[in-house]
Amino acid sequence: MGGDHGPEVTIPASLDCLKNNPDLKLILVGDEVVIRQQMAQELAAYQDRITIQHASQCVGMDESPAKALKNKKDSSMRVAINMVRDGRADACVSAGNTGALMATARFVLKMMPGIDRPAIISTLPSIYGHTHVLDLGANVDCSAEHLFQFAVMGNELVKAVEAIEIPKVGLLNIGEEDMKGNEQVKSAAKLLENSSLNYIGYVEGNSLNAGHIKVDLIVTDGFVGNVALKSIEGAAKMIGTTLKQAFDKNYLTKLAGLLAYPVLKSFKQRIDPRLYNGASFLGLRGLVIKSHGGADVLAFKTAIELAICEVNKDVIRKISEQVEKTLALREIA
Amino acid sequence: MGGDHGPEVTIPASLDCLKNNPDLKLILVGDEVVIRQQMAQELAAYQDRITIQHASQCVGMDESPAKALKNKKDSSMRVAINMVRDGRADACVSAGNTGALMATARFVLKMMPGIDRPAIISTLPSIYGHTHVLDLGANVDCSAEHLFQFAVMGNELVKAVEAIEIPKVGLLNIGEEDMKGNEQVKSAAKLLENSSLNYIGYVEGNSLNAGHIKVDLIVTDGFVGNVALKSIEGAAKMIGTTLKQAFDKNYLTKLAGLLAYPVLKSFKQRIDPRLYNGASFLGLRGLVIKSHGGADVLAFKTAIELAICEVNKDVIRKISEQVEKTLALREIA
Repeated sequence: MGGDHGPEVTIPASLDCLKNNPDLKLILVGDEVVIRQQMAQELAAYQDRITIQHASQCVGMDESPAKALKNKKDSSMRVAINMVRDGRADACVSAGNTGALMATARFVLKMMPGIDRPAIISTLPSIYGHTHVLDLGANVDCSAEHLFQFAVMGNELVKAVEAIEIPKVGLLNIGEEDMKGNEQVKSAAKLLENSSLNYIGYVEGNSLNAGHIKVDLIVTDGFVGNVALKSIEGAAKMIGTTLKQAFDKNYLTKLAGLLAYPVLKSFKQRIDPRLYNGASFLGLRGLVIKSHGGADVLAFKTAIELAICEVNKDVIRKISEQVEKTLALREIA
Repeated sequence: MGGDHGPEVTIPASLDCLKNNPDLKLILVGDEVVIRQQMAQELAAYQDRITIQHASQCVGMDESPAKALKNKKDSSMRVAINMVRDGRADACVSAGNTGALMATARFVLKMMPGIDRPAIISTLPSIYGHTHVLDLGANVDCSAEHLFQFAVMGNELVKAVEAIEIPKVGLLNIGEEDMKGNEQVKSAAKLLENSSLNYIGYVEGNSLNAGHIKVDLIVTDGFVGNVALKSIEGAAKMIGTTLKQAFDKNYLTKLAGLLAYPVLKSFKQRIDPRLYNGASFLGLRGLVIKSHGGADVLAFKTAIELAICEVNKDVIRKISEQVEKTLALREIA
């Protein structure tokens, strides 16, 4: 039900995913009447692979997480997360209110033992392929220990979904030299140096999209990560707008744009943010994927595909086992 | 002498600026022999507007600021900043080691009364024109009071150089709602709300280049500001690389690129980072401008032009007076 467009986007995206993934079963959680209206014809075609789970409430995009948690016990996101807790669903995908989704997921699913705080991880396109980054906004203040826990979890996710045996892990900082950074970052660097992770050192903001070496996972606190992510979104928007304006200037530039259209189209597809939609909440005892609120059908489909991938790769179990191992090693040390 | 290219870049840029600014006088600080070699012919043409000030040392790009301060008392940056302190120069422009330049400037020029810490301010292109941002890396941890002081200084700079009477000031955060952010940001928001500045509230990272409204000045701490700036650089590099790859793919796309060349060129010029080169150190009793270390002639020229502009607009005096006024108002309150 959530996101800026609700079932108009989520249902066509769901149907597309069912078409592309023959083993997929979807439970659509929300207002049953609305859902049935939106997919009257397709329901029959996929009747053995679609279940509708009615939920009478819906969390508003601007609603406070605390209020949603208290007053919306039959919201679509709450019911969906309950189903993950009860083992009736392998993952929950939502385009709804991020704060409320996180608060609900944390309340219902509980934290993984050994992890203090959940973190949000997502993928950005880079000149080397792509880069995973966390935390993207769940935690405004992070200790060195939190950053270390994020690294352990993110590392396991990257190993699983990318099939990279030893991911390169970097810590986001304002310079690559040892003396750079604040106390949390410097202490986190020490924890990472002494860990079994392939820690490559400090990386700067440009490493998210185009550093001088490939980095698989970049760790930072939620304030910095969120600002970096949105700064990149803004830069891409500005560059896209400027490019469009240059081609729209007069009839000659428009003609050039027409001739260059296939090239510009393939360029746009390569960095299309909709193909990078979907952020995973890590550190919980269950899988919750957050889609961008403004997602269209293609973008929401990407978020569902991400959930399918993480379920198939058994990401939550792998993270949980690795966290347990890391804790055991510490107790020995 | 500083930067990745030294006098090969700084001297041609200086000569260009002398050509374009008939009232400009430049003092070239560094190794006199090297400088004379680099500009043997032009020296005569500009002899009444060029002075060479010999400095026997040069701070390395990776040298620690503390060591540079202690051991390089006759470095080109130190001598240049001494000249600003002594009133023999109106501003110092350097492409050298940022940390050393900041430490030297702070040691030699001293802080403005009422300002606790210096901040680095620069300009980014935006869909509305451009945005000024500070701090870009001088301070890794900032209190609300520091952020407030940055806002007061930046506001005065924007008023002076942009001739905007009432700049719109935003505070960088991870959401626009009141509840968002860390404690420093929330407290800084209160200080700004109660000030005479035109504080418009929290803005997100995308506002640096392409927010939903125009913001003239964005205030943040140096860690977040630096990461945001470099994230934008990385995004621009990735997008540029991807665009180039798309046009380089085969002979048809290359032909399209040839036809679209004038458009692509005008697009590139519009967002050319060299035209935004130059960051001012604010909060000191004198003007120091930092150029990107990798600046080429055009970029270094932009940094010199920025210094000329800020000198002509009397930015340091205006900031100093405004800070004094703000302090007086606080004492009354």
